[in-house]
Amino acid sequence: MGVFEDMRSDIDSLMASRQLDALLVLGGEEFSSIRYYLSRGADITQGYILKIKAADPLLIVNSMEIEEAAKSGFPVKTFGDYGLYELQRQYPDDPLAVQIAFFTRILETAGIEFGRIGLYGTGNLSEFIEFIRRVDRELPQYEFVGENGADLFREAMLTKDDEEMARLRSVAERTNTVMQATWDFISGHHVEQDQVVNAAGEALTIGQVKSFVLKALLEKGLEDTGMIFAQGRDAGFPHSRGEAEDVLRPGQSIVFDLFPREIGGGYHHDMTRTWSLGYASPHVQKAYDEVMTAFDLSIEMYGLNKPTYLMQEAVQNYFEAQGHETSRSHPGTLEGYVHSLGHGVGINIHELPRISHLSQEDVFQIGNCITIEPGLYYPEKGFGVRVEDMFIVNKRGELESLTPFRKDLVLPLS
Amino acid sequence: MGVFEDMRSDIDSLMASRQLDALLVLGGEEFSSIRYYLSRGADITQGYILKIKAADPLLIVNSMEIEEAAKSGFPVKTFGDYGLYELQRQYPDDPLAVQIAFFTRILETAGIEFGRIGLYGTGNLSEFIEFIRRVDRELPQYEFVGENGADLFREAMLTKDDEEMARLRSVAERTNTVMQATWDFISGHHVEQDQVVNAAGEALTIGQVKSFVLKALLEKGLEDTGMIFAQGRDAGFPHSRGEAEDVLRPGQSIVFDLFPREIGGGYHHDMTRTWSLGYASPHVQKAYDEVMTAFDLSIEMYGLNKPTYLMQEAVQNYFEAQGHETSRSHPGTLEGYVHSLGHGVGINIHELPRISHLSQEDVFQIGNCITIEPGLYYPEKGFGVRVEDMFIVNKRGELESLTPFRKDLVLPLS
Repeated sequence: MGVFEDMRSDIDSLMASRQLDALLVLGGEEFSSIRYYLSRGADITQGYILKIKAADPLLIVNSMEIEEAAKSGFPVKTFGDYGLYELQRQYPDDPLAVQIAFFTRILETAGIEFGRIGLYGTGNLSEFIEFIRRVDRELPQYEFVGENGADLFREAMLTKDDEEMARLRSVAERTNTVMQATWDFISGHHVEQDQVVNAAGEALTIGQVKSFVLKALLEKGLEDTGMIFAQGRDAGFPHSRGEAEDVLRPGQSIVFDLFPREIGGGYHHDMTRTWSLGYASPHVQKAYDEVMTAFDLSIEMYGLNKPTYLMQEAVQNYFEAQGHETSRSHPGTLEGYVHSLGHGVGINIHELPRISHLSQEDVFQIGNCITIEPGLYYPEKGFGVRVEDMFIVNKRGELESLTPFRKDLVLPLS
Repeated sequence: MGVFEDMRSDIDSLMASRQLDALLVLGGEEFSSIRYYLSRGADITQGYILKIKAADPLLIVNSMEIEEAAKSGFPVKTFGDYGLYELQRQYPDDPLAVQIAFFTRILETAGIEFGRIGLYGTGNLSEFIEFIRRVDRELPQYEFVGENGADLFREAMLTKDDEEMARLRSVAERTNTVMQATWDFISGHHVEQDQVVNAAGEALTIGQVKSFVLKALLEKGLEDTGMIFAQGRDAGFPHSRGEAEDVLRPGQSIVFDLFPREIGGGYHHDMTRTWSLGYASPHVQKAYDEVMTAFDLSIEMYGLNKPTYLMQEAVQNYFEAQGHETSRSHPGTLEGYVHSLGHGVGINIHELPRISHLSQEDVFQIGNCITIEPGLYYPEKGFGVRVEDMFIVNKRGELESLTPFRKDLVLPLS
């Protein structure tokens, strides 16, 4: 109960600071991190959530989903409780009128006859256009409030409570184990004619490695959300996923960025290693050493309540001094250090705080969970390097790594 | 090339019928079926798509993602090509002004100086509220158009082309194989003291079955999107997922609804079987027989260009005559036949056409891919039954099943 009391009082104070009388979470069948967060992971594929001051979230679902919704421990009502089916008969040709009357009943039933209503959620933008225009016109008693940037839920998710921390630690431990298993799997191969092959002489492809990783994740109760395993020139593009049919080759930089989550949605881990199989060529080794220096420099800039962007600046200063372009010196550049240093992680893979020169207001707080991931990218030279660990700011205010896995560049083959 | 020419001319004519001069697909990191569809599955985690008449879709992405975007075969531009970084410096405290100027540049660069712009996509609803209010005020040269119900992309996805059909057939075949493997896995168990146990006498749980299924899917290049494996009372709630720690028991109805998709996003299969392990009790057998009669009755109502709702009506007529409540006779009921008969399937698990008494305008067309899934639910009596196959309307206008897997209620144990 402690956890959920924390979450509720957090949200109450975030509502107060925004002068919101109610939060209404909308959205369709898409995975919604806000719905997951507010319903404590109840596995509902549809449904709305109402939160008013000093009350538990109220889940409003299709009657088919009341059992799943009830697992939240929060009160549950059905669409029928608000007369949705009568409204559908009343406005057979105007689904928006149905929606507007339905949400008005939800608010009125909760005693909210007027006031500021924060709307949140993930959903169909096209459907939302006329909805907004009409509620603005038709419901003058309410002011519907949107937010940009660090909105209420991003702020709520910015610091993790004990239960969230425990889950993040568990996912981290399992992800590190999968990294080790992948290392061991690849290292059981050897080189023949510039290809990495198994004992039977069959070439090892990126698709096979990814397949191995997917199974290893599953064994640990985790699911992939789009891992990157990109070799050579592909590694030079930070978000290139890698080509399934490509054969692994010795001496090529491989960027392996693994960011799985609990199966079915939940908390993530996020880590990256750069591997060069058998040996590393001098230019990759040099870039790798620079990335590791940048990594260590960034950690030195950590301090509780210190701005996060100081880490990014330290890395940019260093890389620029080494002659690399950065996204500060050359916005939009494809070569050098082309992204920000890190980001928060939780139910979403990208949360607050940002660690970027473009976000100078974020400071480190107890309960943050972040990545640090410097990298150097030279696609035209056929390589890229990135190293990423995940950290929490623990109760003692220390930056504590959740990614103990080894940082060797060279992965020896058999 | 034929496939994509089809898709493009389809969308051109859907734009013409809506008098739209351009489509702009927005949205964030969430999986977006529209982005997937329009970019032919390019694995971009962010980015926008512009479609104007008689032109290929244009993908506009972060420079880090140009390689992934280029896999679409369509033209790609980067945020920097439209001066995003200068705009960010120009409006450092107004991210919405940056966005509005950025989208205006995208439209103007494509020669769209005024006109009707359809906005689509999946995204953050809260951020969209002020965006809509401001573009309505600040960009009078454009009319921004939203849609409800059968919008442009739902219509485009309503019929599948040859490539899509081939993928749906392949996913179907693999999903049927996984069903058979699951049947075989469970049937290797036996009963001891009213529990289903393995050769070593260890009880088999729903969690273990789901874990087996996840691995079997992975072997076939598929990923789960939230399977239901619900026993007894849980089976009586159509969307109850089942409890991982529950032990399988003989003679209980188990609803197993499996709807995986290609790994990383893509086309789905959707099928349900109801199993009773070892034997079936008479009331479950009776409900099962009624569901199968309803299933057969619905198939008889099929006809090319015939309204889809006639199937649902036939099933409702039959169930009501048997004394069951339905969502027509008792909207919102939790007992009896509580949902609609089926839905389209594709990149989304729920697409057009609907097969519901509430949607009388949908008719069967060549290229449809649908489910038929009658069910009966009695949670207070501790059981539920649903049987679901997926069908396509093939080129000859026939309703062709993609779900040949056996429809036995009783799964014999060892």
